[in-house]
Order: sequence, then structure tokens, then C-alpha cells
Amino acid sequence: MQGLANPASAIACTLAILAGAGGCATTSHDPLPSWSDGAAKSTITDFVRRVTTQDAAGFVPPAERIAVFDNDGTLWSEQPAYVQLLFAIDRVKTLAPQHPEWRTTQPFKAVLDGDMRTLAAGGEKGMLELLMATHADMTTDEFADIARDWIATARHPSRQRPYTRMVYQPMLELLDYLRANGFRTYIVSGGGVEFMRVFAEAVYGVPPEQVIGSSIKTQFEMRSTGPVLNRLPEIDFIDDKAGKPVAIHKFIGRRPIAAFGNSDGDLQMLQWTAAGDGARLMVIVHHTDDRREWAYDRDSHIGRLDLALDEADRRGWTIVDMKRDWRVVYPQ
Amino acid sequence: MQGLANPASAIACTLAILAGAGGCATTSHDPLPSWSDGAAKSTITDFVRRVTTQDAAGFVPPAERIAVFDNDGTLWSEQPAYVQLLFAIDRVKTLAPQHPEWRTTQPFKAVLDGDMRTLAAGGEKGMLELLMATHADMTTDEFADIARDWIATARHPSRQRPYTRMVYQPMLELLDYLRANGFRTYIVSGGGVEFMRVFAEAVYGVPPEQVIGSSIKTQFEMRSTGPVLNRLPEIDFIDDKAGKPVAIHKFIGRRPIAAFGNSDGDLQMLQWTAAGDGARLMVIVHHTDDRREWAYDRDSHIGRLDLALDEADRRGWTIVDMKRDWRVVYPQ
Repeated sequence: MQGLANPASAIACTLAILAGAGGCATTSHDPLPSWSDGAAKSTITDFVRRVTTQDAAGFVPPAERIAVFDNDGTLWSEQPAYVQLLFAIDRVKTLAPQHPEWRTTQPFKAVLDGDMRTLAAGGEKGMLELLMATHADMTTDEFADIARDWIATARHPSRQRPYTRMVYQPMLELLDYLRANGFRTYIVSGGGVEFMRVFAEAVYGVPPEQVIGSSIKTQFEMRSTGPVLNRLPEIDFIDDKAGKPVAIHKFIGRRPIAAFGNSDGDLQMLQWTAAGDGARLMVIVHHTDDRREWAYDRDSHIGRLDLALDEADRRGWTIVDMKRDWRVVYPQ
Repeated sequence: MQGLANPASAIACTLAILAGAGGCATTSHDPLPSWSDGAAKSTITDFVRRVTTQDAAGFVPPAERIAVFDNDGTLWSEQPAYVQLLFAIDRVKTLAPQHPEWRTTQPFKAVLDGDMRTLAAGGEKGMLELLMATHADMTTDEFADIARDWIATARHPSRQRPYTRMVYQPMLELLDYLRANGFRTYIVSGGGVEFMRVFAEAVYGVPPEQVIGSSIKTQFEMRSTGPVLNRLPEIDFIDDKAGKPVAIHKFIGRRPIAAFGNSDGDLQMLQWTAAGDGARLMVIVHHTDDRREWAYDRDSHIGRLDLALDEADRRGWTIVDMKRDWRVVYPQ
């Protein structure tokens, strides 16, 4: 439960909220110790103080304190590739003995040959084939077991640590801090919802019903052993770019007051959040630290940050410079 | 806030849950005063006591106490027609002056002529046309305003009371009772999610993020006045029959431990709930009271209860006989 750094304080603050108090913005300890003192940190804490101070102009009741977080590149690292793609690649290798045809068929051949250039050249169509071959034609329970086993044992290719330790310590503190102040924290990610749900609660403290993501279609089937939901090889919804506000409205039905992203895929979610009335917080995590993490933005094919960086500048959104604003990146 | 009969007790019980106690199954007052003493009521209270008694075999932690409720015919009356269809009919009448072609085009002509027989003969295709003409091609905010105004002023055709007073008092008490015992109560209905969300919180105490329903597609658009979500004349998802467990899994990501329905449209949701491990509660509201409400089941074209009634008998699910089990039907 890395995500729950201080459960006792969280409960105390929840009780304060239920009792009608504003929350716990003012605590004696620093709730964000991994954040350097500076504009990014103070913008966040000022915002939280403002929306939790009862009878103040910016007060927001707890039910409306919705904060949405992108996952890849915002809560955990997305280099050298999205974790879920690395999962799909591992699955192809595991399943290859049952699929001799993959030795001569793209994109599977590229995966088995370790030929990332050919894989990348296959573009979206190739990725979709990989996804369907590894994520569909099984029940939701079967998929969850496979994903859970993988995330528990897989290691990042260059850092050699579990992916669940490639999460950002400052963001874990931020999630805790917001929840301790009566926020509900949602993940709104282009990643697969059923992939994220197997670790989001243990790692981020975000329960399944607050994880929103891309999905493939499922079908209810009554089998002799009982009902199952079968995962079909067909895209249901892509929760990226203009899909993010659509999904937020469909799943939550409330407009967030705070949004956190790191790429152009988060632009519309940030715009949608910004367009509401009252106090708002829009934050972009900028990958500037090529020593402790990675440095990339406008020219990256993963997590490209170009249009959203311009809009953040223009509209005064908060840009977190990882190198400058984070004392530590990963949990120790 | 008809749905919140006893907020003080709800808060006290929530505090007890946070403090690690089992909940509030044992209270000195009767939490279900509109329910007659009998098997249905005692099955419900026994179940709640069982799942909230810590260290007992059936204990379920609060996070897993998910209860799902159908809406039409389970929480409010669905005769002589689904409320949302009556809304669509009213909208056609209101919009008719701007659509002279409707005087000669079905299904609109049937609506304007009050010819329900022809309207019904148009079947699903006609209903879909009515729905799209009245529910789409506007922003989500515009639709919410229209629906909110209508539900605040419309009256049931024969009972002459607001639809929000056609809700079942025993079910309001049940919603409160479950929430006071740490449950989260979700609506899982074939009705439109954006239609239900305008009244579900005030009437049932169910917040927007716990309302799951059918939906049409929406599209993010950046206009000169800011971003909007535009409602497209295209079905996104039908949350009925086999769609209900699909939606439950997609939106909640947990299997409910209690499910409440009234028709064959709820069968798969009940089956999905029943198939989980541990204590389970499956309840069917049977419309048996032609004096205070309506009496219908196997032969009704609205809320047909046939297959699910057989399965409830076979599997020992709880059948609520409205005439026998409810002391009162509607709020006084």
C-alpha cells in the first residue's frame, strides 16, 4: 500500500469533513516532502487551502472535489515504452509456442525477433493486433489474473525494478494530500481500464470505480459453470485526447476542479477542467530530468508534449519541472 | 432531499465504519417502517446484519458493499409508460411548431395526434427516432437544463403528482438503510444516464457518479465560448439485459453483493450478482398491487417479468410482493 502514506491522518481529515469542517489543508507537517519549495508546490497547496476553507470565496464542497490524473508519464514512467505495451510484448513471447504462425507474421515476428523498429513501423494497426492477440478472447477474471501476475513479477528493462516502483513519489504524496482534503482522485488514462485496475488501488490508493481508461468490448455469457464476461477482440472506447472529457462526463458526471497530465493526450481534459466556474487547478508534469528519469517533450513519439505546453504557457497553467520541482522521483 | 430520511444516523454509522466497527445493522428504531414484517423484510435485514458483523463468516468490508438498483419499476413507477418516454412525448409537443414536417411524419404524427396505438406499433425504430429528435443535437448542459425543468414541473397523467413523488417510499428507506450500513448504492438502469442524473441525487440520494444507464454518444467540441460536449444522434450503449453486468464491470469494476430489479431486463444483473462468493442478496419487486400502484408481470409489454420470476423461484431469490410487503407505496 505505497499510496497510503498516512492513513491515520487521512481518517482524521475525513472525520473533520463529515463533521462539517473544511478539511485539513493546514497540517503541522509538510504533506508534500518530495516537492521542492517553489511555484509549483505553492500553487497546489494554495489551491487546496482555497477550496477547503469554508465560507471563503473559493470553497468547494467535498462531493465536488474531483481530481483527475493521467497515468502514463503523470503517475509513473512511460519510457522506453508504455508499460502496457511491454506487457503485450511479454505476452506474445509467452504465448508464442502455441502460435507457430507468429514466427512469420507481423507484428508478432518483430516482437519475437526483438525488432522494435519494425514493430514501431507497423503503427497503430500493428499495435491493435498485438493488443487483441494478448488482451482478448478470455474472461475478465482470466485477464485480471494474468495482468496481476505480470505486474507482480515483471521488471523495467533498464532500471530493473518492478513497474509499481517506477511511480513518482511526489505524485503519491499529492494523491494522499488531496484525498486527506476530501478530494476523490480518479485516474483518466489512455491505458486499458482492466489493466490499471489490478494495481491502482494497491499502488495509488485509487479504487477500481475511480479508474477510467480505454476498453475493449465485453460480452455476458452464461456458461455451465456460471456467468462470465468475455473480452472480445474489438475496441470499445479510446480514452485519449477528446475522449477524456467524454469519459469523465460519462463515468463521473461532474466536471473536475483539478486535472493532472503530461502530454497532448491530456489537453482536452485540462481544457474541460479549466472551463468550469470557481477555483481550478491545471497541472502538467514536464519530463526534464534525463538523469533521474527521462527528458522529452515536443519531439517525442511517446508522451508528446507540444500543443499542451503552448496552451499551458498561454493560460498560466502550472508546469511541473521534474528536475527542479521534485526532490526525489521514485519511492526509496 | 426525500432520499435522506435520517442523515444524522447515516453520519453516525459512517463514523462507526471508519472507526473499524462493523456498521449499524442493529439500531433501536425500525429502519424500514414502510415494510410489513415478513420474509422479504427479514431477509433484507438479516443479510445486512450478516455482511456488517465483523469477525462473522459473512462479513464484507465497506469498499465491497456495492448494491445495484434498477430504476423504472424498481425505484419508481413505470406505468402507463417509462417516464423518459413521456418526457420525449412532451418534448415533441413543445418542439412541434419548429417542425411542421412532424404533422405528417411518423412517429411524430402519432405523438401529436395522441395516437399511442400507432406509436407503439412503430416499435423500437420509432422509439429511437423519438429519442434522437428530442435528446440529441444539443450540449450536455443544455440537455440537463431541459430535463431538470421538465422533471420539476411535469405531472403523472393519471395520478397528477410529480414523477419524483411516484418513487417508492419503501425503496427510499432501503437505500438509506443500506448507505447507513456502509453500502454504496448504484442505479443501473436502461434509462438514459443523463436524464436520471438530474434528479437521482435529490430524490434517491444517489450522486451522479453512481448512476449508470443507457447513453448516446457525445463529442468534445471547442467553441468560441469554450469547450462543450455535444450530444450526437447515435446510441452509445444500451444498459439493459446482458448489458447490465457489462456496464457494472466497466463502471464499478467490482461485483455487487446485492441487486434489486423488477423485470426480465434485470435478470443478468441478478445472475451476475448471485454468482459471486459469500453473502448475496437478490431481490425482485413484483408489481401485485392494482389498487395502490399497478399489477403486471408475465404479459406486460412494460417491465415484463417472466424469465426472472421463474429463476427467482428456482433459486430462492427474494420476491417482494408490493401488495403484501409494503405498508405504503408512495411518500406521503
